[in-house]
Amino acid sequence: MSRVVVVGAGFAGMAAVRELRESGGQVTLVDRHIYSTFQPLLYQVATGGLNPGDIVYPTRNFVRRHGARFRRGSVTAIDTHARELVLDGGARLGYDYLLLASGVTTNYFGVPGAAEHTMALYTRQEAIILRDCLMAGLEALAARTGTGDLTAVIVGGGATGVETAGAMAELRNAAVKTAFPEITPRQVNIMLLEQGPELLAPSPPRLRRYALAQLRKREVQVRLDTAVREVTPHTVVLGDNTMLRADLTIWAAGVTASTAVHKWGLPQGRGGRIFVDDHLRVAGHPEIFAAGDLALIDGQPLAQQAQPAIQTGTHAGRQIRHLLAGQATQPFHYRDKGSMATIGRNAAVVALPHGVRLSGALAWLAWLGLHIIMLLGNRNRLSTLLNLSWRYLAWPSGNSLIVGDLPDQDQHDRHET
Amino acid sequence: MSRVVVVGAGFAGMAAVRELRESGGQVTLVDRHIYSTFQPLLYQVATGGLNPGDIVYPTRNFVRRHGARFRRGSVTAIDTHARELVLDGGARLGYDYLLLASGVTTNYFGVPGAAEHTMALYTRQEAIILRDCLMAGLEALAARTGTGDLTAVIVGGGATGVETAGAMAELRNAAVKTAFPEITPRQVNIMLLEQGPELLAPSPPRLRRYALAQLRKREVQVRLDTAVREVTPHTVVLGDNTMLRADLTIWAAGVTASTAVHKWGLPQGRGGRIFVDDHLRVAGHPEIFAAGDLALIDGQPLAQQAQPAIQTGTHAGRQIRHLLAGQATQPFHYRDKGSMATIGRNAAVVALPHGVRLSGALAWLAWLGLHIIMLLGNRNRLSTLLNLSWRYLAWPSGNSLIVGDLPDQDQHDRHET
Repeated sequence: MSRVVVVGAGFAGMAAVRELRESGGQVTLVDRHIYSTFQPLLYQVATGGLNPGDIVYPTRNFVRRHGARFRRGSVTAIDTHARELVLDGGARLGYDYLLLASGVTTNYFGVPGAAEHTMALYTRQEAIILRDCLMAGLEALAARTGTGDLTAVIVGGGATGVETAGAMAELRNAAVKTAFPEITPRQVNIMLLEQGPELLAPSPPRLRRYALAQLRKREVQVRLDTAVREVTPHTVVLGDNTMLRADLTIWAAGVTASTAVHKWGLPQGRGGRIFVDDHLRVAGHPEIFAAGDLALIDGQPLAQQAQPAIQTGTHAGRQIRHLLAGQATQPFHYRDKGSMATIGRNAAVVALPHGVRLSGALAWLAWLGLHIIMLLGNRNRLSTLLNLSWRYLAWPSGNSLIVGDLPDQDQHDRHET
Repeated sequence: MSRVVVVGAGFAGMAAVRELRESGGQVTLVDRHIYSTFQPLLYQVATGGLNPGDIVYPTRNFVRRHGARFRRGSVTAIDTHARELVLDGGARLGYDYLLLASGVTTNYFGVPGAAEHTMALYTRQEAIILRDCLMAGLEALAARTGTGDLTAVIVGGGATGVETAGAMAELRNAAVKTAFPEITPRQVNIMLLEQGPELLAPSPPRLRRYALAQLRKREVQVRLDTAVREVTPHTVVLGDNTMLRADLTIWAAGVTASTAVHKWGLPQGRGGRIFVDDHLRVAGHPEIFAAGDLALIDGQPLAQQAQPAIQTGTHAGRQIRHLLAGQATQPFHYRDKGSMATIGRNAAVVALPHGVRLSGALAWLAWLGLHIIMLLGNRNRLSTLLNLSWRYLAWPSGNSLIVGDLPDQDQHDRHET
């Protein structure tokens, strides 16, 4: 039986495994985590609205239902001659066909201090760290009863930055007011910095304006055309050398392939992504495909969203299925199904193809429904529906946050003044 | 306004805050965590059945509804002359009346290696660590496809040990079988060691026998009359010098006051607990009370269960209310409402007063219902009901575990061979 190995249990890798279900190959899904993360809702974990467990799904449960196997590990090298992956710890895993879909990680663009003094929001663990640092900041502010302030600076006005800023603003305006009588909401500042002239740059103009207006309505200080030059433990230095005091800095400015990818010996392009042709095959390796955020198709990365990942993953899985059946591969064509972002309760933007635009409460319900449907597992769906309803509908001014342990004193001190 | 400070947001401290609601005092609840933990279900978090967020409740939400305040901190000293608590970080908090209810922690009874090489199950964080180490052990076993084994040794046959062993056995018998095709359940050993001649020692004989039979039916290796002499990274040495290989060792053998309590300068008795009279007052300090696991009432500790904690907390709160109103205090009388433990699906034991005994499915439903009712917050109730139903009723052979990040390689290696 031909061995198919899929690296990465994100949207792309899972779409490929689904597609390979009846392929006749022995499919193994490899991931460094034992769960698959639903990244679009990570910012809800970071702001205490969802449990980490609501948005991660055990990968073994997923593979079992698709006749595949799971192997936990990181790919440290690819022996393309022997057709074997080398995993952390040294184990080797042979393949006849290989799909690389392990995604990307935070890009600090060489900004000094950014990697050391900011928090990212790309993994389950990062979301938990942000949540706990945020709560530690609020507790420290509460202990000073009435004096001082807490400033969170979010760098990057894409969907992650916009959604995080919106959720943090709602947390401040609702939860902080009721749960922290020692703090007035004015003591908590939320700033969103965007290098370009607009938020949500790839979206249509009406939606960009809507997002900006909603964030400002929620008293997020949005600064456009604002580059970051340096980050220190307590400041963000802007392009014009202005210094902003920052207790928490969240980096949502961009992504790049992880450094591990550089050791794989495959052709890489912009942002370290793996160069593939329009069939999603790696040049010179007809048995290796790449999909999702990691793939650079004919030199063009697709948007870092679920849809492009799912479509490329499905396509790559289908091509491997074709090859297993002795058929030829087909080129990939992206089908735009639109995009969406949420700013807060009853406030979201949806851009569908053919110029259809939604905003406000209807868009918010569409956002909620689509995310519930896209989650893996009925338990996660029910739990997420329960928790998001709690947050936004049933008790809008309530504040039953999902909280955890505060970071230890060292880290704690680092993020507070 | 008189200042009442309650230390510890467990069952006892929260019961006291409830009782003090209309007391006219300014009540502050102090805890080192920002949440209150529902300890009876910690073992469900440790075995992937519940989210940590399902069983912890933000303490600020609780105090707000009872007209009290919250202060995060550990009590490092008590200045009984100035009537001030000293918190970690140095801040001082004045009181006119003080209730100490910060509970107890794991007691290693001086067994060499126990503190270093075992995991406890007394806090949210400990439950997460156990869960992640358990999953890491299963993944490492799976990577060896068909060879080796994983042995978990649980030390202590009280409610925590029995419930943890039962949940781990169900996890092995259901989830491991389906989610880990590389492992046969026989490769996973679960051992429960009890120093005394019986499990659940304080319960009536019928229930002790039931628990033992149910655990053995689920293939837990129960060893009674078995003392532990030493623990090393990979072995548990028994009283007769037998060595058991252990990949994970869980210490559920007993509790003691934390070392911080020794610095408070108050009279301490057995297990470091604070000595109080039958009015729950500390000798020589008529303004200081103790309740819950931390209190040693006339030299006798009550069982480490929710009921004694709630009853002593309520009583202490009521006495402070009396004192605020210029009334005399009353002695405490414990009212036995029974106890319960669960071994697995449809298997639980309930001992009610007056000799009423339940076991099996009815007891299980009583166990489930009572725990749902006792949880704080409707969201936690719904979420716990959802998750426990998922685990035990809807998909009994399913295995949608709630999982997290595996411990880093160092810790990982420590717990595996």
